[in-house]
Amino acid sequence: MNMSDARGRGERLVVIGGDAAGMSAASQARRLRSPDELEIVAFERGHFTSYSACGIPYWVGGDVAEREQLIARTPEEHRARDIDVRLRTEVTGIDVDQQRVRARDVVSGDEYWTPYDKLVIATGARPIRPELPGMEAPGVHGVQTLDDGQALMDTLVRTRGRRAVVVGAGYIGVEMAEAMINRGYEVTVVNRGREPMATLDPDMGRLVHRAMEGLGITMVNDTEVTGLLTGDDGRVRAVDARDARFPADVVVLGIGVRPETSLARAAGLPLGQHGGLLTDRSMRVRGHENIWAGGDCVEVLDLVSGQERHIALGTHANKHGQVIGANVGGDYATFPGVVGTAVSKVCDLEIARTGLREKDARRVGLRFESVTVESTSRAGYYPNASPMTVKMLAERRTGRLLGVQIVGREGAGKRVDIAAVALTAGMTVEQMTALDLGYAPPFSPVWDPVLVAARKAAAKVRGAG
Amino acid sequence: MNMSDARGRGERLVVIGGDAAGMSAASQARRLRSPDELEIVAFERGHFTSYSACGIPYWVGGDVAEREQLIARTPEEHRARDIDVRLRTEVTGIDVDQQRVRARDVVSGDEYWTPYDKLVIATGARPIRPELPGMEAPGVHGVQTLDDGQALMDTLVRTRGRRAVVVGAGYIGVEMAEAMINRGYEVTVVNRGREPMATLDPDMGRLVHRAMEGLGITMVNDTEVTGLLTGDDGRVRAVDARDARFPADVVVLGIGVRPETSLARAAGLPLGQHGGLLTDRSMRVRGHENIWAGGDCVEVLDLVSGQERHIALGTHANKHGQVIGANVGGDYATFPGVVGTAVSKVCDLEIARTGLREKDARRVGLRFESVTVESTSRAGYYPNASPMTVKMLAERRTGRLLGVQIVGREGAGKRVDIAAVALTAGMTVEQMTALDLGYAPPFSPVWDPVLVAARKAAAKVRGAG
Repeated sequence: MNMSDARGRGERLVVIGGDAAGMSAASQARRLRSPDELEIVAFERGHFTSYSACGIPYWVGGDVAEREQLIARTPEEHRARDIDVRLRTEVTGIDVDQQRVRARDVVSGDEYWTPYDKLVIATGARPIRPELPGMEAPGVHGVQTLDDGQALMDTLVRTRGRRAVVVGAGYIGVEMAEAMINRGYEVTVVNRGREPMATLDPDMGRLVHRAMEGLGITMVNDTEVTGLLTGDDGRVRAVDARDARFPADVVVLGIGVRPETSLARAAGLPLGQHGGLLTDRSMRVRGHENIWAGGDCVEVLDLVSGQERHIALGTHANKHGQVIGANVGGDYATFPGVVGTAVSKVCDLEIARTGLREKDARRVGLRFESVTVESTSRAGYYPNASPMTVKMLAERRTGRLLGVQIVGREGAGKRVDIAAVALTAGMTVEQMTALDLGYAPPFSPVWDPVLVAARKAAAKVRGAG
Repeated sequence: MNMSDARGRGERLVVIGGDAAGMSAASQARRLRSPDELEIVAFERGHFTSYSACGIPYWVGGDVAEREQLIARTPEEHRARDIDVRLRTEVTGIDVDQQRVRARDVVSGDEYWTPYDKLVIATGARPIRPELPGMEAPGVHGVQTLDDGQALMDTLVRTRGRRAVVVGAGYIGVEMAEAMINRGYEVTVVNRGREPMATLDPDMGRLVHRAMEGLGITMVNDTEVTGLLTGDDGRVRAVDARDARFPADVVVLGIGVRPETSLARAAGLPLGQHGGLLTDRSMRVRGHENIWAGGDCVEVLDLVSGQERHIALGTHANKHGQVIGANVGGDYATFPGVVGTAVSKVCDLEIARTGLREKDARRVGLRFESVTVESTSRAGYYPNASPMTVKMLAERRTGRLLGVQIVGREGAGKRVDIAAVALTAGMTVEQMTALDLGYAPPFSPVWDPVLVAARKAAAKVRGAG
């Protein structure tokens, strides 16, 4: 491992964070620039690089047998391509003026400065941990990083009790609820909101609620956790709410995440309303010629609302990395923004959304019409046609598509892509009614569920005048 | 049944053809206009109305148990809504000047004129039957109408032999090959083209070829049928090609269809290059104020090539009917055109296409870059991730998406909708690389296969300069 600060003839790229965004950027830059032209040093606090954090629930749940399957590229593979990956090394400071970062070897405690010509910040996100008694107790786990996942797996192996409480009912919460059910736990999900999946409107979240109960998951909504009860051994024993106590042998935190930008903040880099780094379209940190940022630590432009959002999602992180690597390497690429697409599942229930929810639309001053339709995944007469609920929002007057939410079984989730592309293109729901979508009885009713929703939405927009 | 020609105070709408386009038009017009305002008479040559012709292969193959499941709305249901459906009644002439049609009761032979104020032509398509010896022999079946399907089912019940020959390897051919395999037949598909599924480029058709062989279907390409051999009883015995004879107890014709426009031609209505009626965007027959046409008997504008095509597909027919009914009923709707999306399957192989093939692009003078990528339906580490091949064509210089073809297993087919919407929006492959598509490990790799293809296509367009 080259710990020297000596500079060669070429430039040095320093990457902070060894997962999707950081290592995609490093890899793409390496494709474009030889080691002579560009030295690349990547600092990673944990033990792993380039892994699928989104895959952790499926590893915990047993769908994925081995942790290694989640790792797209190991540190050794990166090193073989002349990327100097330094594991267990935490960056403790960025000195923008002097163009250097301070790093600390987590094991030895050694600290040193490393100068950079170009810097990529890919520090990811950290799970929200409310400051409540017992939050740091053994048996309480986030699942943000692969190290987190490993810690949870270690706990599960050691824990005899079979009661799991999942705090939070967003994507991570419902996926972890499924994982724990699959491992044979009794699962209670404690949720602050009215319904699970707050990324959906509550009427659609209600469908998820019912399905989760059908799976034997105890779903407790409208409930704020007030603390965690620990036993004499210090381990977690229960989750406390104002009026209730939920016994727990293990607690999984799925409350959501915040951008991990304490380094960036300390360095005076520009942060947005959601605490994420602000970049331009080339993923360059605003106002800084030689600093890029991507992945879960940045805010992205929502093309539908026109405002910045924070979305922690591997697919965006990979795109950011690709764009950063291209620009760092002297090529050109941009990330124009997102429309807010997300898809998930709880057992065989598929859950998808894109664009704005009702409250998002209201918040940004958009008036809208909202419709909900019931349809099926295949022609009604075809075997295994399963019901599907599609909700669609369209702007009043213009009829512009604003958002789609879908809950159903097999074939429901990825249908949201139709709406994602239509949102990107700025289509109206009237235009969508004419979309030439794939039709055959095993794949769709003769009117695809998304078209049925578009027709109803278009009629409602016309009717509202 | 009102056979009278007497006219009430209201107008009379005459519909020729009682399937998807015709009866959708009738139903939509009825929603907008009361029987006092608009009398509706619909003539149908066969025994059925509003059925799913696309479902016939699945009924024959046993996936759909009952013929009645394919019928969306029976004649009685239409009549209950004051639509005067006249079954087994063939229209033999359209008198445009006098605004009347001549109809013949197929059973009684009675003929009579019926005047109209507004006319909808929805005469559908007819299967191509090469003029070869034996083509009309018992045991040779098309599967275009539900009456055709019933005739085939009657033959299958009576036939002891288990050898089926399917002539043609388009959608109908491959779907019928699957159906006959499912019924326990030895199936040979005789195909004139280089590979099955001529709606794909041959390199993609080759993947279908291999999969069909894997299912035990004998696939014979590059072979022109020269005639059908019949036995002493007049029934079909074999299919003859120039150098080969294929024994057959039943023959299914899946050669494709042509617009059924002999009536329209005789009436002097405008037909296009492919023999289909030419309409404007409101589905009105060009140059005729009070005549509309839709479904398999019309040509549609291909939005990618800018030229008319003939596509027989239930989803278009339903849209046409909806548009016609709205306009006939005094509302307003248009059908802007198609991008040529189609999806099909042979057992668990999913086959999809949209936009232009290589030869389509060449024919309309477009230069293009073509890429093919291999990816998977889910994250590689997720159970049941299955391989998927995506081919993408982009215009040289502009990078505009021209077409996509996908062959794979579960989850492959409907991914073509992403490209269908992108084509409709006129997106470039570079723009597509930033699409915010649904990602989670059970649904997609972190780069959706369509994005992988778009990235490769975009790079190739840039590289070609």
